[in-house]
This record gives sequence, structure tokens and C-alpha cells, in this order.
Amino acid sequence: MPLIDKLVVCGVGLIGGSFALALRNKKKVGRVVGIGRSKESLERAQALGVIDEIAPDWASALDGADFVLLAMPVGQTDAVMEAMAPHLQAPTIVTDAGSTKRDVITSAYHRLDAHLSRVVPAHPIAGTEKSGVQAASARLFRGKRTVVTPLPENDPAAVERVRKAWQACGASVVDMVPQDHDRVFAAVSHLPHLLAFGLVHELAGRANAELLFSHAASGFRDFTRIAASHPEMWRDICLANRQALVGELDQYLGELALIRSLLLSGNGSRLEQLFEEASQARTKWGEELMKNVTSQPMAGTEQAVNPAAR
Amino acid sequence: MPLIDKLVVCGVGLIGGSFALALRNKKKVGRVVGIGRSKESLERAQALGVIDEIAPDWASALDGADFVLLAMPVGQTDAVMEAMAPHLQAPTIVTDAGSTKRDVITSAYHRLDAHLSRVVPAHPIAGTEKSGVQAASARLFRGKRTVVTPLPENDPAAVERVRKAWQACGASVVDMVPQDHDRVFAAVSHLPHLLAFGLVHELAGRANAELLFSHAASGFRDFTRIAASHPEMWRDICLANRQALVGELDQYLGELALIRSLLLSGNGSRLEQLFEEASQARTKWGEELMKNVTSQPMAGTEQAVNPAAR
Repeated sequence: MPLIDKLVVCGVGLIGGSFALALRNKKKVGRVVGIGRSKESLERAQALGVIDEIAPDWASALDGADFVLLAMPVGQTDAVMEAMAPHLQAPTIVTDAGSTKRDVITSAYHRLDAHLSRVVPAHPIAGTEKSGVQAASARLFRGKRTVVTPLPENDPAAVERVRKAWQACGASVVDMVPQDHDRVFAAVSHLPHLLAFGLVHELAGRANAELLFSHAASGFRDFTRIAASHPEMWRDICLANRQALVGELDQYLGELALIRSLLLSGNGSRLEQLFEEASQARTKWGEELMKNVTSQPMAGTEQAVNPAAR
Repeated sequence: MPLIDKLVVCGVGLIGGSFALALRNKKKVGRVVGIGRSKESLERAQALGVIDEIAPDWASALDGADFVLLAMPVGQTDAVMEAMAPHLQAPTIVTDAGSTKRDVITSAYHRLDAHLSRVVPAHPIAGTEKSGVQAASARLFRGKRTVVTPLPENDPAAVERVRKAWQACGASVVDMVPQDHDRVFAAVSHLPHLLAFGLVHELAGRANAELLFSHAASGFRDFTRIAASHPEMWRDICLANRQALVGELDQYLGELALIRSLLLSGNGSRLEQLFEEASQARTKWGEELMKNVTSQPMAGTEQAVNPAAR
């Protein structure tokens, strides 16, 4: 039995495309309509069978829609919500897949204030360094987590339908307060992306960049995998969450200052202790991760995914 | 036909054990003798069939040895070379697997000055975040690179035998000047390890560490994999190469200062451009890497390797 009759996906890329494919795969969706900036990308999504049709405008997209997923870079949220607002019908549930929540919620209060009972912000914790609908996969969310940050104004039935949609994609759903969400992900996701982008950018700009890259091995490969991520998406995340992110960066800079002083003073015992604490924490976390994911491969491998094989 | 009759491995861990296993696997070695600090680790190596016997001292180890691999943490090099020196026989080739080369070479000049024609420093570019002989694998070096940094005093035949031994393990061999080696690996290996150790250490020390780790996903997993590495080994590398490493760290801190200012001023277009340059460079490098390694899996996956299955 379909959970969603007419699904509208705005931004049919890795995340929006994978959501559509996962629901299709489970026969939980009737019709999938795509809308977005790039006609070429929408046509590719249609050719790949990710969406059934391309909506020419929001009036047509929202006509009879019962579920909208906003999956474009978060910097577009405000403009998209403004464009949607005049055409939004009372029963339509609106959710999003943004990596930041406070900015999305601010736009919702500003642009969709008449519809707040059915605007349920969410964030699927999945992705790879690949982007675009050609990287989408029905399996992307399996064994992963989706964070939902319900609004006080939300109709509990709307929140429940958003939860059910993500569960149908194979994700487990947890609730968080938006402020906590943005602080936690600044630390464990946004900062690591920033650090990886920074390292690759700095090395790539050097005169001997080719020599350096030619000697880089598996440690560098994994450390910098996320530096291949979508630049616009990450620009938007970093700007939307810059307050928390600068706080995290500054805390990290404090750590690097400590490490630098230990190096300069040749303090081997404190350096080893620091590495030991990190190594133990990382090993413990890695073991728990393996227990939880069991046979589920995590997203984010170097291997190309062939959409035709899905 | 064996390339090496009696092989001595000092420090039978991940690297030393994998070297022995790879040569055994190709029937390129007669007898493998282990020596090291930890009796327990040597006994494990013997039980796993990585070494044939445990040498009680250097006199016995070096008696009739034709090839010695030093594979303990680089901080021990000077003391080990001092202990070896009185027992070293003229034909014995000595090489090492240290991640830094200038410190190893300084010790060689200091401790093995009568033997320099046969001391050939090298560095296999392979490893995982796992350590110890139980993580060793005959396949560790396949499709990888070993850097050899020959000394002007080296007998070319000795250099050639070291090259052949690493090639027998499946590695391709390149020559480098030691100073270049240490600078290049400070940038593409030692700094990323330091940054990963630092991030995990900083997060693990927080009151809400458990909450943070519980939300960390595949980006964090790969970024921090190397933070599970061997603390003593990395203390030694960081101290041995601290001059180059502090230089790299300072250059990186300059990059982070730039990124911080772009965040604070909300300069989205320059931030996106920086991310774009990094993303393009990393994507290009990743594609070249995949071409080169073809079907060779790179070391460093989360999966446990079962030594019994090798």
C-alpha cells in the first residue's frame, strides 16, 4: 500500500533521488514528480527512472501532492519556500533533507507560517562524496539514521508520516532539538568536511602538488574522501551553520596549538598519551559502528555505483 | 630460488610480519628469525607461522644473517643499531621500514659507520590503522610503493637486493632523496595523522562525547580511521620529523585562518571556489588512484583481517 500517492522531490540529486528510488523500490509511492533548477539533471533523473515526470512550475508540482521533499542545497530553502507558498494545499506534508536545521526552520516560519502544522524538518545522515542523481541508490539510507526535528506547531500525524517514509527507506529515525542537531553536526560532520577541503586545497595549490599527490596513500585517501563533496552544498551548510562551525573550528585550533607546542618542545610522553587516548576512542567507536551496521555496507566508498545495476 | 637465506626481522608487527609473510608466500626466504622488545609479540608471530624462531640476542640473530629488516618504531632505531653493530657480519644487508628517513640515516652514520655500503634505508608506503603481527598480511604491499633512499656509500648490489625484496612482496620501488622523502610524507601522511588524532582526542575529551560519537557517520569514520593508529609509532614519527611537520602544520593553520575569515565574513563565493578547487583536485586524484590500483584493494578497511585465513 503506497504511503505517499504523489511525491514531489525538489532537487533530484544524490539524496532526493535515493529517497525516491527507495520508496519506489518498496512500492510505497504512487507517482514521483521532480522539480529543480537544472533541466538537464531532471531529465537525467527521468531517464534513469528516478522520477515519473518533471513539473514545469510549483503550481503544477503541488497540485494534489501529498508529500514534498526539499533536497536542494540549504541555501535555496528560503527562495524555494517562498515560491511554494502560494500553491501549497492544506493536506500536503513538507519535509526536507538539509544538513542544517535552524536555517531551514527560520525560513519555514518566515515563508510557510500558514502551513507549520505540516512542515516537518529532517536530516538523513547518509551521503557519499559523489553527488548528482547518477549517484543515487535505493540502498543509500539502509541501516542509517534520519534525524527529525519536529516543530511545536507540527501535527503529530504529519511527523509520523515523515518518520514512516524514512523508515520505509531503511533508516532508523531519532528526534533532536534543532539547536542540538546543528551543534552536534558542526562537530562530527561539518568541521571534518571543512578540514578535508582545506587540506586538499592547500596541497593542490602548491608548485609540487603533483609530486605530493603521487606519494599519497590510503591514509590520505580516506582522510580526504569528503573533500570531493559537492562544493555548493557544503558552502551552504557552512554558511548556514557558521556560528556553531566557527566555535568548533576554534576549539580544534586550540587542540592543534597544544599539539604544536608538544612537537616543538619534543614532549614525546604527552604526545603519545594524546595519540593513545585518540586511538582508544577511535577503536572503540569503530567497533561499535561495526556491531551496529553488521552486514550493511556504509555509504562512501571509492567505487562508482552503476545506477543501471540497481 | 630464495632471495634471502636467513632473514632477521626486528619488530615483528604489522609491517615486519607482512614482509616476512609476503617473502615466505613467494618462497623467497629460507629461514625467518624474529627479534624485539616484546617476548609475547614474538611468540604470537611464531605461533602464527610468521617467523621460524626467536633470537635470544643480536649475536645469535646476526650469525649468518644475510638480510635484516628493522621494523620497530623509528624512535628505537639508534639503540637497535648500537646493539647490532658489534655483531654485524660483513655481507649482511640492513634495511628498515621507517616512515622517516633522515633520523634513521643519522643513526646509521653514527652507529653503523663501518657498514654503510650495506645499510639501505627504505619506507614501504603501506599500512593500516591496525597494528601488531595479528594484522600482518602477505598481501599488504601488493600494488603499493616502497621508497628507497640509498646512501652515497651504498654498494649498488645491496641496493638492488633491497629493491628485489620489496618487489617480491608485490611493491613497486621508487628512489627518493631522504630530505624530499621526509618533506613529502610530512605533508601527505604525517600531518593527516596528526590532524585525525587531534580531532578525535578533542571530541573524546568532551562531556558530551558519547552523544557526538553516536551521530558520527561515514564521513567521520573515514576522516578519523588513521586516528586508531599505533600511538608509539606515531609519536616517534612526529618527533623524528617534527621540523618538516611543524612547517606543514603551520602552512595548514594558515589555510584554516583563511577559511575561518571566509566563514566569519560570510564570503560564500570564495568559500565555494575553495571547496570547488579541493573537490576537483580530490576527484582527479581519486580517479587516478583507482586506475593505478585497478583490482588491488587498498589497505586500511574497517574489516578485521583473519590471519588464519591468509
